Amino acid sequence: MGRVTVRRPVRKISATRDVRRPDALAAEEPLEIRVGGKALAVTMRTPGNDVELAHGFLLSEGVLTTREDVAVARYCDGVDDQGRNTYNVLDIALAEGVAPPETGVERNFYTTSSCGVCGKAALDAVKLRSRFSPEKSGFAVSTDVLAKLPDTLRAHQKVFSSTGGLHAAALFDGDGNLAVVREDVGRHNAVDKVLGWALQAGRIPAADAGLLVSGRASFELVQKAAMAGIGLLAAVSAPSSLAAELAEENGMTLIGFLRGDSMNLYSGEQRVLGLATGT
Amino acid sequence: MGRVTVRRPVRKISATRDVRRPDALAAEEPLEIRVGGKALAVTMRTPGNDVELAHGFLLSEGVLTTREDVAVARYCDGVDDQGRNTYNVLDIALAEGVAPPETGVERNFYTTSSCGVCGKAALDAVKLRSRFSPEKSGFAVSTDVLAKLPDTLRAHQKVFSSTGGLHAAALFDGDGNLAVVREDVGRHNAVDKVLGWALQAGRIPAADAGLLVSGRASFELVQKAAMAGIGLLAAVSAPSSLAAELAEENGMTLIGFLRGDSMNLYSGEQRVLGLATGT
Repeated sequence: MGRVTVRRPVRKISATRDVRRPDALAAEEPLEIRVGGKALAVTMRTPGNDVELAHGFLLSEGVLTTREDVAVARYCDGVDDQGRNTYNVLDIALAEGVAPPETGVERNFYTTSSCGVCGKAALDAVKLRSRFSPEKSGFAVSTDVLAKLPDTLRAHQKVFSSTGGLHAAALFDGDGNLAVVREDVGRHNAVDKVLGWALQAGRIPAADAGLLVSGRASFELVQKAAMAGIGLLAAVSAPSSLAAELAEENGMTLIGFLRGDSMNLYSGEQRVLGLATGT
Repeated sequence: MGRVTVRRPVRKISATRDVRRPDALAAEEPLEIRVGGKALAVTMRTPGNDVELAHGFLLSEGVLTTREDVAVARYCDGVDDQGRNTYNVLDIALAEGVAPPETGVERNFYTTSSCGVCGKAALDAVKLRSRFSPEKSGFAVSTDVLAKLPDTLRAHQKVFSSTGGLHAAALFDGDGNLAVVREDVGRHNAVDKVLGWALQAGRIPAADAGLLVSGRASFELVQKAAMAGIGLLAAVSAPSSLAAELAEENGMTLIGFLRGDSMNLYSGEQRVLGLATGT
């Protein structure tokens, strides 16, 4: 694509220097996702793996469950004011019999979800029902393997190393091998790309893998993992309160602050091997 | 509110210990923003300063320009299944003559904005036109003052210090004094709260201040600053390509990687004092 990073001039200033030089920035461009020609959502993403992103987004939203649910994915053929295709509008044609998503504010895409009726309990209001059962995931991984994951992920973050500006997500197995790594300026996009890859690879529900994210664990990311049937989410940074609540309610394992040899385990201890029992 | 942090049990594991204890997590709950009783957007936010958040959001979206544009802001009186008001639905009644926002997918709130027509140039497609002129901001600040801002901000981040899980935003003056600091699980929410505070304080356009954010600078944050008439945005972490493009196009000053005594200056050098000229 050639658009994962963009070079721009920058003036680097410190107490001891003041130099101008080109700098690599993480590319950010809008992607409009259409379903059957109808605009559904716009996300600010790093170009690349857009088809995966759209698949993962629609999986997360409960529209897709298998790769056969998509008939064809293609970029619109419109052009910008210089006659070039922007590759920023992607249309997904659903297979026959697959129900299109609801649209409109009532089901507000990329707000994570709609709050629904005033007065409804917060968690119930925003969560989607997964067609898979993350609580049934038999995936398990040792603390030793978990502790090595952030370094492994960082080693795969090609764009981060040049820009310092990208989130990453990955699927990993019980030995700590990464099946797929994706980077994006938006952490939800990075996760959608990973889940879309898994959907296209016929690996959804991904009950045999864990999901690793380079930053914080929000409600939205736990929900995406649940919608993909993933039983374990590990985050390098802090989880939010609703992330922890949703993980527990779904019978999922949530790990936060995965740094050095330490980690915080919020729920789902049965998927973490090597723990002392009864502590 | 008592909901800025939530205590949950956590199992803290490392090579040398394995203990269970309560942990403070950054609270995350949905806020549905309604305008005139009509659902407009749902954002996952940290409760608190919700009225500011709604004001800032509607300023960012071009609906509000002064505090007089709002007749009244109030929580809906619905209750959850235990009879408690969730304080998660806020209704804004606009003053007479203020045009309500467009709704629907074509103007998709919290996707930042809509991509519009296929083939339209990316930047044009997503940007809003500010009614103010950030390029006219006469604000200026020295590199010495800028270098001290991250430490000052961190000292004001009360919730971050207990949870490690919140973004922060602040308005600062030319001497490095912070007029307002807000924290949130979402960086756009932290900025909306700051801008909403400024709107309610009659300080929009905020041409006499800079905006400081604890994380990365995305397109969305530059756009919010522009919509508030702010001429300078300083971020502790990396900007995206579109953030740098939009800042330059709007005649704004964009600073990234503001750490220690160093910083990267991407555009708008006239607002940074103490630079050698001609380098």
